[in-house]
Amino acid sequence: MRAATEPPRRLNVLVLYAHPEPTSFCAALRTVAVEALTEAGHHVTVSDLYAERFDPVAGRHDFQESRDPGRFHYQNEQAHAAKTGTFAPDIAREQERFRAADVVIAVFPLWWSGVPAIVKGWFERVLAFGFAYVDGARFDTGLFPDKTGLVCVTTGGTPERFSESGVYGPIEAILAPVNRYVFGYLGMTALAPFVAYAAPRVSQTERARYLDNWRERIRTLDQEVSCPGK
Amino acid sequence: MRAATEPPRRLNVLVLYAHPEPTSFCAALRTVAVEALTEAGHHVTVSDLYAERFDPVAGRHDFQESRDPGRFHYQNEQAHAAKTGTFAPDIAREQERFRAADVVIAVFPLWWSGVPAIVKGWFERVLAFGFAYVDGARFDTGLFPDKTGLVCVTTGGTPERFSESGVYGPIEAILAPVNRYVFGYLGMTALAPFVAYAAPRVSQTERARYLDNWRERIRTLDQEVSCPGK
Repeated sequence: MRAATEPPRRLNVLVLYAHPEPTSFCAALRTVAVEALTEAGHHVTVSDLYAERFDPVAGRHDFQESRDPGRFHYQNEQAHAAKTGTFAPDIAREQERFRAADVVIAVFPLWWSGVPAIVKGWFERVLAFGFAYVDGARFDTGLFPDKTGLVCVTTGGTPERFSESGVYGPIEAILAPVNRYVFGYLGMTALAPFVAYAAPRVSQTERARYLDNWRERIRTLDQEVSCPGK
Repeated sequence: MRAATEPPRRLNVLVLYAHPEPTSFCAALRTVAVEALTEAGHHVTVSDLYAERFDPVAGRHDFQESRDPGRFHYQNEQAHAAKTGTFAPDIAREQERFRAADVVIAVFPLWWSGVPAIVKGWFERVLAFGFAYVDGARFDTGLFPDKTGLVCVTTGGTPERFSESGVYGPIEAILAPVNRYVFGYLGMTALAPFVAYAAPRVSQTERARYLDNWRERIRTLDQEVSCPGK
């Protein structure tokens, strides 16, 4: 938390966005984030995974050359590509976006209690061994202590379903695969998630309130980001 | 648990397998499962997601016709396709495999603490609204109380990392997105997972022991499956 008298910090923010429908509520959350970040003077890049037709399947096409053409060992190939700069162009582009980011905001609908496959594949392919983590540098010793992660998620389920006694349990546990096992694994700070519960079921007024709250959250984002990115 | 005197039951088993390398240890676990199931007289189908180039990205290509060409609402389109039998051929094929299965065995490497993206996409696209779940029929009231799920997973991390005090915590929580929020959501019974911890780090002897234990587990699988499939 910075003192109110400090000048606002200009952050590089990567919005990792995934929804197949451009008029969805998820898209509206993405748009609000981009607008509010820009208004606050931050620099924003959007990885629009559906629009960019991001391929989430990990494989040999991740690499421009093979370390071992006979047997595909994913982490070994990733390590080789990180060393030689031979990731495929789509991965190299996303890695540059990630590398430049002080803050990663992931905006997605909760599907089957987790990130959509297209987001999971982004983690697998972009956050490669040798680039985003190496042996002995994970969690507390992760490579990116200056980066911050923020999840913005829509759910079909009501808040009751995500309560202690609900069928899903608390959203924090549901989102641990992102906040702890991706952001945390990389040494990043994970902020409290923004959750638009039951987005398709609530009223238009409620959805408008979600957008207002999200805009306000973004407006003061720099106060939540405690580690200067540069 | 059946009495020892009962005749063995013939089960329909779907092996949902995902690994990009055919000589991987995951592939060996798949092969052992298929062999042991066949020897035990069960009927086996393998969905080899990488070999079949399964597309994990949910979208309009899931459907042969559009309920609403103007705005893509995934669950609405799924409901329409389920009603009219207009899922795309790859989804229809996987749904038939799933429908016929008494047991689903998912064999995959643990990536970023979860299923590979290609498996997540299988859940999203194949286990569609209207086909695998409907309003008011989830968890205890799920549509498939006669089906059983079994996860067989390889991890990079050691058992210590998955202990109560380990960085990942117990494997049961790590696998909840599959066992509880997919299998459980559908009303299926989830068996205790088979976990080959630290598969790439242990000795050849240890890996052989994993395969032996897995073969034995499969050999007696029908004793674990308490709900007769038919």
